[in-house]
This record gives sequence, C-alpha cells and structure tokens, in this order.
Amino acid sequence: MKTQTILTVGSLAFDTIQTPAGKADSVLGGSGNYFSIAASHYAPVEVVGVVGEDFPKEHLEWLSTRNIGVSGIKVAAGKTFHWVGSYDRNLNEAQTLSTALNVFEHFDPKLAKHHQDIPYVFLANIDPVLQQSVLDQIRSPRLVACDSMNFWITGKPAELRKTLARVDLLSINEGEAFLLSGQKNVLKAALEIQKMGPSTVIIKRGEYGSNLLTPQGFFIAPAYPTSQVVDPTGAGDSFAGAVMGYLAEQGAHRNMVHSDPKQWERLLRRAVLAGSVMASFTVEDFSFKRLLSLNVSDLVERQNALIKMMSID
Amino acid sequence: MKTQTILTVGSLAFDTIQTPAGKADSVLGGSGNYFSIAASHYAPVEVVGVVGEDFPKEHLEWLSTRNIGVSGIKVAAGKTFHWVGSYDRNLNEAQTLSTALNVFEHFDPKLAKHHQDIPYVFLANIDPVLQQSVLDQIRSPRLVACDSMNFWITGKPAELRKTLARVDLLSINEGEAFLLSGQKNVLKAALEIQKMGPSTVIIKRGEYGSNLLTPQGFFIAPAYPTSQVVDPTGAGDSFAGAVMGYLAEQGAHRNMVHSDPKQWERLLRRAVLAGSVMASFTVEDFSFKRLLSLNVSDLVERQNALIKMMSID
Repeated sequence: MKTQTILTVGSLAFDTIQTPAGKADSVLGGSGNYFSIAASHYAPVEVVGVVGEDFPKEHLEWLSTRNIGVSGIKVAAGKTFHWVGSYDRNLNEAQTLSTALNVFEHFDPKLAKHHQDIPYVFLANIDPVLQQSVLDQIRSPRLVACDSMNFWITGKPAELRKTLARVDLLSINEGEAFLLSGQKNVLKAALEIQKMGPSTVIIKRGEYGSNLLTPQGFFIAPAYPTSQVVDPTGAGDSFAGAVMGYLAEQGAHRNMVHSDPKQWERLLRRAVLAGSVMASFTVEDFSFKRLLSLNVSDLVERQNALIKMMSID
Repeated sequence: MKTQTILTVGSLAFDTIQTPAGKADSVLGGSGNYFSIAASHYAPVEVVGVVGEDFPKEHLEWLSTRNIGVSGIKVAAGKTFHWVGSYDRNLNEAQTLSTALNVFEHFDPKLAKHHQDIPYVFLANIDPVLQQSVLDQIRSPRLVACDSMNFWITGKPAELRKTLARVDLLSINEGEAFLLSGQKNVLKAALEIQKMGPSTVIIKRGEYGSNLLTPQGFFIAPAYPTSQVVDPTGAGDSFAGAVMGYLAEQGAHRNMVHSDPKQWERLLRRAVLAGSVMASFTVEDFSFKRLLSLNVSDLVERQNALIKMMSID
C-alpha cells in the first residue's frame, strides 16, 4: 500500500433529493462515494462499505479506474441504503424525509489485511462503535480524522467521546459542533471539542465557509461563492475528501502537531481551502456529477481565485 | 471644515432591547450615534438628526468631546424616536416589536452652510427621499455612502433607485441585498446592485462577516469571532462608521475607482476589516457601551488577530 493511501469507511447509497433547483431520484450518493471521489484527486483511496445487490457494478468498476480501491466494498443480500431528503431555501440544512438503512443496518467493517496498514484514515459519519472497531484494526495510522452527526451526538454520546479521544481531526457541521460542545460560539465550540481529543477541529458552516482550530491558531476560511447551487448533498463529505487528500499528498503526520506545529498549521489551512473549493464544485449539480468532469486546472483556478478573494492586498 | 470630516444623517434614538443575554430599557441608540461614535476613532464627524426634549443633553455634550459635531442635531418639541426590538437565538436578525417615530416622523434635514462643504457623506438608513434631499445640499462630495432596509426597498423602490444612482458605496444586510437585487447568491446580488449605481457594494452577513464588491474584485471578510455577543444592535452602523472613518482618514476619493482602482481596492479591503473589528466590539455590550472604553490599541490588536485568522501562511 502506498504511503499516501487513505482508507475511508462510510456509506454508499441511493439518494432521492428535492432542492429549490429540482429533483433527483435514486441517484448515487453516500459519504463513501463523495469522500473518495474528492480525495482521489490528491491520493489513492480504499473504500470500506456495504452495498446491496441492486447497486450498479459499473459504478464500482468506474471507481477502480480512478485510483479508488473497491475490494473493501461488500455486496450483501438485500437492498442498498436509500436516503430521501429535501432542502428548502436554507440550503445549509437538509431535512431527512426517510432513511432506509437496508444492508447498511448490519454493517460491520472487517478490514482485510492490506487495509490494516493504510496510514490515513477517515471515519465518515457512522456509528461511533463502528468507528472505534475500525481504529482497533488499523496498525499504525499517520493521521485519523472523523465526522459525526446529531444522531450519534445525542444517541451515543459516551461512545462518540471514545472515538474523539482517538482521532487527530474532527470535521463537523456548525450546528452539530454546538450540540456536541454545548457552546453557541464557533471558537468556544471548537476549543471545547479540542479538549475531547482531536488536536484539530474543522467546523463547517455551509455557504459561509469553515473554521479551523489547531493548537497553533484559528483560521477562518471562506466558501467559494459559486452562484450555481443545485444540491448541497455531499458538500461536507467532499470537503473532507479534499482535506484528507491534500494532507495525504503532502505527507502530513499526526506527530507534526508537536514536532512541527507551524508546518501542521500551514498544511491544515491549505487543506481547508482545498476542501472549500471541492465543496463548491459538488453543490453545482446533483449527486457527484460535477466532480466527474473536474480536472486539476479547475481546482487550481478556483483555489487561486479564492485566495485572491481573501487576501488583504 | 477639515478635509477628512464625515457628515452623517441618521437617527438618534432610545432602544428597548431583549436578547438572549438580557434586557436593556430605553438605552441610547440610533444609527447616528453608532455610526458617529465608531467613525470618530478615525476622523471628525458631524451628525445631522433630530431628538425630542427628553433626550439627555449630557449625551450631546459628551459627543462633542469626541470629535463629533452636534450642531446639526435639532431638539424638537416632543419625544425622541423609540425602537423596541428583540433577538432570539439567531442573533443575526432583529425582530421589531414597536417603533415610535415621534419627532423623527417629520424629520427634514436642512444642512447648515458649514455642513454643505463636508467631503465625506454617510446616509444612514432613512427615507430615500431625505437621502436625496441631503445630497442635493452637498456641494462637492469626495465620497458618498448609504445604507437602506426592507421598509424602503419594498415601500419606495423608485426613490431608493434614485439614491443608489448617486452613491459610491452601499453597505447593506445580506437579506436586504437579496430583496433589493432579486438574487439569492451574494456575489450575484452584489453585481446586480452595482448596476444600480454604487461602484462599490458591501454586503453585511452578521457573524459570518461581510463581502465587498468593487470594479476590481470580490473580497470575503470574516467577522471577528468574539465569544461575548450580548446585543447585535448597532453592529451594522458601527461597521459603516469604521469603514467611512478609515476611508476618510486615508483620503479615499470617488475618482480613485477609475484613476487608481488598485489603491481603491486596497483601501476598501482594509476599511471592511476595520468595520468587522468595530462591529465585534459593539456587540459585546448593550447600546454603544463597549465602544466608549475602546482605544487605538484595542482596535489594532483585534485587527492584527483577525488578519492572522484569514492568512494562509
């Protein structure tokens, strides 16, 4: 396994989505898809997850062509996870209309031997018990990041705390950060979460960008102001994919937080901008359609534009 | 009159405010107060407005001690404008519970001779007909800025357009920018408003900062993440006060937009940061209490901290 490879454990799903811009019926989605497609622009990815027999084999084959290993995706008897959601004019928050877990209900990630040596790990928003089970199987991680959500924050707070004690980086939505920390200010919330374990906390604020707390400082990153917001689904997961992809590409290591905190800070700030740029493309179409046609020049161009928009000179 | 002097026309009021942090009863407020106190840190200010006989003379005397001319504040028979409002957990938006215009109802700004030569003009959020009447009386403005609100956008759209055609800079809330432009994206909204007249548009986004559009570019400015938000009232007016104060202090001129667009851009970006910093102090206490104890070091320290939080290195 390459030294830059990222392992991600998350969902592969069908999404049915209504937004002010239109409707998409049973399109491909899930954190595993969004994260890995975004991250694969920077580094190789291995996905661990489960799909039903109804999941298109062509999609798995297509992922393989993009530096995304799919040997960890189990095809189980039954149907694929299906999420039905909608967004009203406040595009920053999805409303879940129904969730059919299907094969995802009994998901129990067992890592193959060659997955246990992967250095970069992203635990998408799944049961914190499973997140820990994955970490138990990883031999010597260079960097571990995770996401979570309201459902686990209120439903399994003790287990989530155990996960947080073991990760370097938490990437989480603003509302969830407030719920997790009991704070209503973004800086206070990040400081409170930092005490729970992760040295580094990213708070995602949708169209308002994101905030980053490290032991060295606090960074306020703008979102790229795309004017074509079609569907926000997957913005957070593709944001995280670009963040982890960039960090893996650059060889970031958890020890840097202490051994070279300035370099850690520098890498994290750039990683967050890469995340902003990736998320801004994701929202421009349904599913991850917009990510498919992206090339390096698109990413570079938008990142340079964003840096100009935040520079005081 | 000094070449840096700013004339502002706006309200002087009593505010009764309920926020999650507490309640304040009949405290001093109004755009004229917030704007001038903020701007006076940078440049001399002359205020044009009207108060009732119940308005404390000591406050007018105190303003004079701070480089704020009050000869344009008329004391009329009757009561002072009184606004009653509240904020729920969403501190970005005030709910008006009652408005007693009182003497403000028949406010008709007649400028004294020495006011007609003032080079910098800020038209706070008042009837666009009065905004134009003020502009008719100004002899040779170097720079004119204004604010507006939902009430005038929907109530006097044609008159507001006439004002906009005559100003260099509009500073307006995000929701109002969307209403005025018919756009729901902040960049599109700013571009649309630019077509209405102002070469430069600032869209205020509360705790999420502000966006600046000039003919040269688009700037995304963060808010300073103060953790002590007591009362958001006056944040927008004190933001505008620091913006205009900084621009006047630096000698910005409307012609710069064409003659030296890079310098215009540079000054505007810094002005917007000065606005962010000032607003972050305003919200830390009721009324403009927090601004009273501010000194230059406080402003410099917070501005430097903010610049660090937005720098990628």
